[in-house]
Order: sequence, then structure tokens, then C-alpha cells
Amino acid sequence: MIRTRAAVAVAPGKPLEIMEVNLEGPKKGEVLVEIKATGLCHTDEFTRSGDDPEGIFPAILGHEGAGVVVEVGEGVTSLEVGDHVIPLYTPECRECEYCLNPKTNLCQAIRSTQGQGLLPDGSTRFSMLDGTPIYHYMGCSTFANHTVVPEIALAKIRKDAPFDKVCYIGCGVTTGIGAVINTAKVEIGSRAIVFGLGGIGLNVIQGLRLAGADQIVGVDLNPGKVEMATQFGMTDFVNPAEVDGDLVAHLVELTKGGADYTFDATGNVQVMRTALEAAHKGWGESIIIGVAPAGAEISTRPFQLVTGRSWRGTAFGGAAGRTDVPKIVDWYMDGKIEIDPMITHKLSLDEINHGFDLMHEGKSIRAVVEF
Amino acid sequence: MIRTRAAVAVAPGKPLEIMEVNLEGPKKGEVLVEIKATGLCHTDEFTRSGDDPEGIFPAILGHEGAGVVVEVGEGVTSLEVGDHVIPLYTPECRECEYCLNPKTNLCQAIRSTQGQGLLPDGSTRFSMLDGTPIYHYMGCSTFANHTVVPEIALAKIRKDAPFDKVCYIGCGVTTGIGAVINTAKVEIGSRAIVFGLGGIGLNVIQGLRLAGADQIVGVDLNPGKVEMATQFGMTDFVNPAEVDGDLVAHLVELTKGGADYTFDATGNVQVMRTALEAAHKGWGESIIIGVAPAGAEISTRPFQLVTGRSWRGTAFGGAAGRTDVPKIVDWYMDGKIEIDPMITHKLSLDEINHGFDLMHEGKSIRAVVEF
Ligand SMILES: [Zn+2]
Ligand SMILES: [Zn+2]
Ligand SMILES: [Zn+2]
Ligand SMILES: [Zn+2]
Repeated sequence: MIRTRAAVAVAPGKPLEIMEVNLEGPKKGEVLVEIKATGLCHTDEFTRSGDDPEGIFPAILGHEGAGVVVEVGEGVTSLEVGDHVIPLYTPECRECEYCLNPKTNLCQAIRSTQGQGLLPDGSTRFSMLDGTPIYHYMGCSTFANHTVVPEIALAKIRKDAPFDKVCYIGCGVTTGIGAVINTAKVEIGSRAIVFGLGGIGLNVIQGLRLAGADQIVGVDLNPGKVEMATQFGMTDFVNPAEVDGDLVAHLVELTKGGADYTFDATGNVQVMRTALEAAHKGWGESIIIGVAPAGAEISTRPFQLVTGRSWRGTAFGGAAGRTDVPKIVDWYMDGKIEIDPMITHKLSLDEINHGFDLMHEGKSIRAVVEF
Repeated sequence: MIRTRAAVAVAPGKPLEIMEVNLEGPKKGEVLVEIKATGLCHTDEFTRSGDDPEGIFPAILGHEGAGVVVEVGEGVTSLEVGDHVIPLYTPECRECEYCLNPKTNLCQAIRSTQGQGLLPDGSTRFSMLDGTPIYHYMGCSTFANHTVVPEIALAKIRKDAPFDKVCYIGCGVTTGIGAVINTAKVEIGSRAIVFGLGGIGLNVIQGLRLAGADQIVGVDLNPGKVEMATQFGMTDFVNPAEVDGDLVAHLVELTKGGADYTFDATGNVQVMRTALEAAHKGWGESIIIGVAPAGAEISTRPFQLVTGRSWRGTAFGGAAGRTDVPKIVDWYMDGKIEIDPMITHKLSLDEINHGFDLMHEGKSIRAVVEF
């Protein structure tokens, strides 16, 4: 048992509380990781705010981290002390029915306990100093200086990669780029539309550039997003507030018949419909990335599908984390993709609640906490 | 100009009227066909009844025919007098952007005139004896003993194939089998669910058998469908009226986690939702075949897609008609697929309205009119 510092979500809607917590050492198949940096993602805020009906409290949130292996539990063979790692909220056991099916990345090996805020043996490693258990979050809990993670949920990465940048590959970068490369499998020369130019949308855009798309249309109500999106590869910008008439018709005209691929990175179900309907008749695919509010539903006329559009979704960019995340780290180190301009704010753990303020104010793309 | 006998839809909701009509000879790129047999499809009835908001009257309906070339217009090179043909409501020009894209079969070469009940030059070939123009329907108008069809909308078939059976390949057979083979690309060993065991559903089932599916679940409220569906390859039957509790949960359990592929052949948007949600997490694909009522919408929670299901549609089974229809005729002649048991009724043109009665009474799978 060690003590470590963490930002604890004590109750829905409350600011995180910075405190010392107890952390038990790794059990069989588990690894103790010292977190060096962690991003703040909208999903953390979705849970912290109380909007997530499945939120469990008290919990240590955070799922976009990078760090160093401090101790390995019994039976751990793929990692050793000193390895650099990125925790994976979508693990990769390489043994379950899902891992063995190339059509999906949704490893189910530890799904039920992870969903309950527990490690695979059904218990928590974190507790308050008075002994109250603290739940894990998405199997990661990176808002703590140390955390315990199953071996199958850790991607081993190269040691020269900077923690404060590659932590973002733990969620946003992989989600956006992976949606293009793994889920949509965008071909060279494609036309695409990206709805929402926040952290995910920008990564979709750079994924499209990497995939060789000819036209990359960005759609956002905030013209302040244009400069950065252009830097990442956007070729056309559309502000729906400035479009006279029907947005779908405008987008279809702009893309000469509709986009080969459209991506929703907003989580808004109306936008998801627009994204589907702006896809090209006959072959356009629309990919849902954003997380919708609880209970919200998408809808359209079935004619949209019968005439050849398809409606799909992606989680963690369709990436098999232990296999794909190290590759994306390489792409970053090789300059194939950019991360630095998206890390707009650096905070200490004590300042973490300010990071959520920045998110709400639309001032940050990514705020990163460094330990 | 010749005279021929036809069943004319004179006004929405009225029985078809059998009459002599005038038919002009084929113009450039057109072919005069003597129709030998035609099936009666739900889509014809959708228009005849007045439910189709885009229905145009007076018109000669029918889009599931087979016949013989009587005369070819100027410039026709791929067909000659005496060839046996099946008219195609989805043509295949082999030159447009759609024909050149292997992801779609929705040739757009003559779409706008076809949608207006006209031949590509913007006029009709049919007229009443008093000169009133009669509109074409889906580019086929097979409820006439003779019809004029563009060359690009005719599949040339072998001469030993019986008209009264292979006419069904002009719509139902190709739609059902093609949804499996061309759209879903079902793999050997797959599990599948088919909603609706009418003419389309039965052809989906035999398509699944042809593709080597391991489990083929049929869902229908009418237990009278079981015998024929079993004959075509159904392995499990589910009557929703006899399921206690949630139908999706029942189907997911029956298919050990959800089906790899589900097919809606009902046109009911609630069933389409059930079909999507009964698809396997991670990789299940749901294909909409049925035509929904005007204005009806499908809906679901986006979570269903984000967790790996995809929602798609198919028109004419994704088939490129001139290329694929002759192959399906071969499959029938070679005994790879069955058609004969589905042709439950044979009628003369004078009895055609009785065919729609049989359809409403659920007594026919396919009624075929022979000339
Ligand atoms: Zn995230
Ligand atoms: Zn797995
Ligand atoms: Zn039909
Ligand atoms: Zn074409």
C-alpha cells in the first residue's frame, strides 16, 4: 500500500477534491503506474458533472494519461519496471472473441468490472485515508499520481516520447485519427466533412490529411476554430449560422454530390442526422464519434440508407490499443501527425478544476495536467 | 406505332383497367420488348393504392418482367431481335459516376426522366386510344404485353430460361439474394436474422443459405410462413407474438450475442430498429430492404452504432443488373437457387386485380401474370 495524490470526484456535480489517497499494490496481472501527465477529456467532465447516468462516486476520473511502470504484479510478462506506458480504457487481451475478430476493437475481457469502477477481481485499489473505497474510472483513473491498471490495458511506448504530449494519444488523438483510418478506412482522394472542430474534430482532420483526402470540410459554429483547423488540414470551412437555406443541400453542393465520408464529433443527435444526410448517395458513410446525452436518439428516413448511405460509429477510433497506440506515438515522433499545438494549457494537479472551466469556456483544445 | 393490351392504373386507389393502348416504336437507344410474364410486387401495389406520394397517373405499372426483343432502335448494339431479356428498374449504363464506382449499383444515367414516368427523351411511348399519354413506371411498365425500354435497362438472359419463373429475378429474387451477397457480403459461417418472411424475406433466406450462413433466423407474426421458409433454409423461427419480454434480448440470446447480419424485409420502421439492435455488438450489420411508408423515420440511440453496429440499406440487392441478373438466371437454371415454389399463383392479364387481392390476403408469395 502506498499513498499518492489524486483529484477525487466525491459526488456528481462537485469540483474535484485534491487529496492524499491510499493505493494498494498491483495484484495478479496488474501493473502499478506512475502517471506523469494526463489530459482532461469531455468524457471526464460528462461524468464529473453528473450528466452521465452511469457515473459512480467517489471515483478518480481521467483516462488520457502516460507514465512509467513502477511495479508489476504476479504473472505480468509484457511489461517491466521502467517501461513507459499509456493506459487504455479499451483494453486488448488478444484472446477474447472480440479481440480475435478483426472487425472490432471492443475487447470484452474486463468489461463488466470496468463498467462498475472495479478492477477485474471485483475490488478497488484506491481508498480514502479513512478506508472508504474510491472507484476506478474507465479502467484508467489517470487523475492520480499513481494508478493500478491491468496489464492488458497498457500500451508500451518508446521512452523518448514526451509524456505531456503523448498522453493525448490515450484518447483524443487515437479516437479522431482512428475513426478515419480504422473505422472509415478513408481512401486517397476522398471528400470528407467533419462536424465539430474541437479536440476530436481536429484529430479527424489530421487523420484525413494523413489518409490523403482531397477535400476536408470543417463545420462549426465558432469561427475561432478556423485557424487551427486549417493548420491541421481543413480545406473548406462552413459556419451553419452563415448558411442561407438548408445546410445539407449546401454541404452536398460544396462536396459535389455529398461527402464520401462524414464524421460527427459533436455528440449532438441533430448534427448526426445532418452528417448522415450530407454523405454521398450510393456510397457515403457517416461515422458517429461524439457521445450523445443520455436518452437522445438519432433518426432519419430509411430512404437515406436504402439509397446507399451507411451509418456507423466508432469507439477509441477502432484502435486495438496495445498494437495501435505505440504506432501512433511513432507517427508523432516522426512528425507524421501533430499534437503540440493542440495542448493549449498545462496545469498542475491542484489546478485541475480550472481545466474544466477552460473546457466550458471553449478556450482550450486540450488542457494537460503534469505531475 | 402498334397496339397492345395493358393493365392501366388510371387513378390512385382504383383497380387497374385492362385496355388496348397505343405504343410507339423504339427511338434511339431504346428497345421494343414483348413481355411474356410479369410478377406483381408490393411496390406496384404501393403506387396503385395511392400510398406512394410520388405516384403518377395514368400509368402502366409493373417492374418484374421477362420477355423477347421485338425491335431495336437506332444505335442499339448489345441486343438484337429475338433476344430474351429482363427489364431493369435500376439500369446499368456502365459509364456514369455511379456505374464506375464499385460501391454502388445506383446508375444515375436516366434517373430524372424515369422518376417522372418518362423515357430518357422526356416523352412517353404509351398513350390511350384517344391520345392521352400514359406514363411509364420505374422505367419498365411490364403490365403491358409490349413495352419500350432503354437498352441500358435490359439484361440479356439465356433462351432456355422459363419466362414465368425468371421474371421474378427482375425484382424480388435479386433484391433478396443481392442484399446478402452484394450489400452485406455475408461470410460463410455467419449468423443472420431475417425480419419478414414474404417474397423478399424468402429470397434473403436462400441467399444466406447460398452464402453458407450457419444460423438463419426468420421472424414473422404469421406461423403459416414457417414451412416454406424452412424449405428455403431457415434454421430457427421466432414469432414475436409468442416471445415473453423483450424481442431484442430474445434474438440476441438465440444468436449467442446478436446476429452478424440482420435484414429488414418488412418496411416497418419499428422492425428496422429491432433489426439493428439485434445485430451483434462490435460488428453486426443491419440492412434495410423494405420500403417504409412516406414520412416514416427510423431511430435508435447512437450508442448502438458507437458500439460497433452499422446501419445500411440496399436497393435492387446492390446488383448491377445487366451484369448480375444473367448470372442469377444461371444460378436458377443450375439449381443453386429455387424460384418455382414461390410462384404461388398464375393469372391472365384480365385477372391482374385479383393478384393484388391475393397479396392483401397474404395468400400469395408471388402471383405472376402470363401473356
Ligand atoms: Zn476521452
Ligand atoms: Zn479481448
Ligand atoms: Zn419490386
Ligand atoms: Zn450508370
